Amino acid sequence: MSQGMRNITIVGLGNVGTNLLSALLSKKLPVTQVLTNSDYVNPAITVINDYGNISQENLVILAVPDNQIAQVLTDIPTDIAVVYTSGAVELNNLPQRKELGVFYPLQTFSKYRSVEFDNIPMLIEANSSSFEEELKQLAKLLSNNVRLVDSTYRKKLHLSAVFINNFTNHIIHIAEKKAIENNVDFELLKPLLRETIDKLSKSTAYDAQTGPARRNDQATINSHIELLNGLDKEVYKTITQSIIQTYFND
Amino acid sequence: MSQGMRNITIVGLGNVGTNLLSALLSKKLPVTQVLTNSDYVNPAITVINDYGNISQENLVILAVPDNQIAQVLTDIPTDIAVVYTSGAVELNNLPQRKELGVFYPLQTFSKYRSVEFDNIPMLIEANSSSFEEELKQLAKLLSNNVRLVDSTYRKKLHLSAVFINNFTNHIIHIAEKKAIENNVDFELLKPLLRETIDKLSKSTAYDAQTGPARRNDQATINSHIELLNGLDKEVYKTITQSIIQTYFND
Repeated sequence: MSQGMRNITIVGLGNVGTNLLSALLSKKLPVTQVLTNSDYVNPAITVINDYGNISQENLVILAVPDNQIAQVLTDIPTDIAVVYTSGAVELNNLPQRKELGVFYPLQTFSKYRSVEFDNIPMLIEANSSSFEEELKQLAKLLSNNVRLVDSTYRKKLHLSAVFINNFTNHIIHIAEKKAIENNVDFELLKPLLRETIDKLSKSTAYDAQTGPARRNDQATINSHIELLNGLDKEVYKTITQSIIQTYFND
Repeated sequence: MSQGMRNITIVGLGNVGTNLLSALLSKKLPVTQVLTNSDYVNPAITVINDYGNISQENLVILAVPDNQIAQVLTDIPTDIAVVYTSGAVELNNLPQRKELGVFYPLQTFSKYRSVEFDNIPMLIEANSSSFEEELKQLAKLLSNNVRLVDSTYRKKLHLSAVFINNFTNHIIHIAEKKAIENNVDFELLKPLLRETIDKLSKSTAYDAQTGPARRNDQATINSHIELLNGLDKEVYKTITQSIIQTYFND
């Protein structure tokens, strides 16, 4: 089964690609090519900008937006092994090839913030057991938390991840935007933000819920709604309704 | 101005009252009475259950739900000094008395989790400058972060606090509920939750945003919506629309 470690080509240096690249390099793993249009300079790595220049023996890690994966796969010769890094895209919905897999780090990444990979769940899937084993071994070099899961499982996890990260982050953005608009000091809310998460180490979110919607306090809810407009108001009303239904209509 | 410290009566042992009581006691502050129907036992404190039994010289801290504050104020003799602990209720909308004030800890509390008060913003307001000064001195014994703010400021801050804590917490509850319904392991999402907040120490939420809505990736958005029902689906759609408007319609 073991065929030694293949060299790696990373396609795309967005948020995910940049972080995967630096994680692989920090473990001295053999990234030999990067395909990008951005200015990446590293004497040990060849920058390419044509799929035809990918080394045939390399393992390709695709770090491109979900909606470009299928197209890029058709651009890469089918005898080259490729993994992609998406939470939502199903393996069976993509153009098939001899070795196709998933190498998905369940985390939020930004280009300019590097994240420790040790505890990041690495979700692995592949279209052959030998390729799956190879990806599992590679993932274990990055993280202590490697799981083999199928596309359906990964997609369901990704749905919850969107709530956990994308939606909470946007809610915090609205809070910050309103604080600025209202000339109140957002710094005063930082201890609350910290405790919101710390509390969940000892309690479920269900039990941790407080606030006017939790009490069905319509006077306070209405006074808040008066301070909001547009989609901010819709977000407030929809989540409030959802909280009230959770605690009062069950 | 200084008249020595008054003894304290706490009215209500819910989430806020319980935490304020233990914070005051931990600083050896003179809480002599607690008004509650619950079973509270402390040899140093008299438990009362009638507003007529409140010591006339005491400072009363009302820790009752917002919609009961006005009523309770009419039940307490008007020569007794009272503060309440609400973020949203305006001082001028309440029945007036010689000494009425606000003693609002900007934090989320649960009865069975005690929180360090040192960094909690204590928002103070009062209907006289001498009472305000007294409350400020008391608050400084609990916290390093004491502010005098008026009711309008406090209410605007409270609005952002509802997003920061109540709404993010509920969003996390939905994520957890869906994970359980979908038989996926919620533990896998904990590192993501932690990084969501850690990331905000170096970035605004606006810049930290990632995910399908941030990319306006309709295929992924639609595949998620198919996995949701009822208000969960409405919450998903409304926040997604708000993210798309934030990044693509500006």
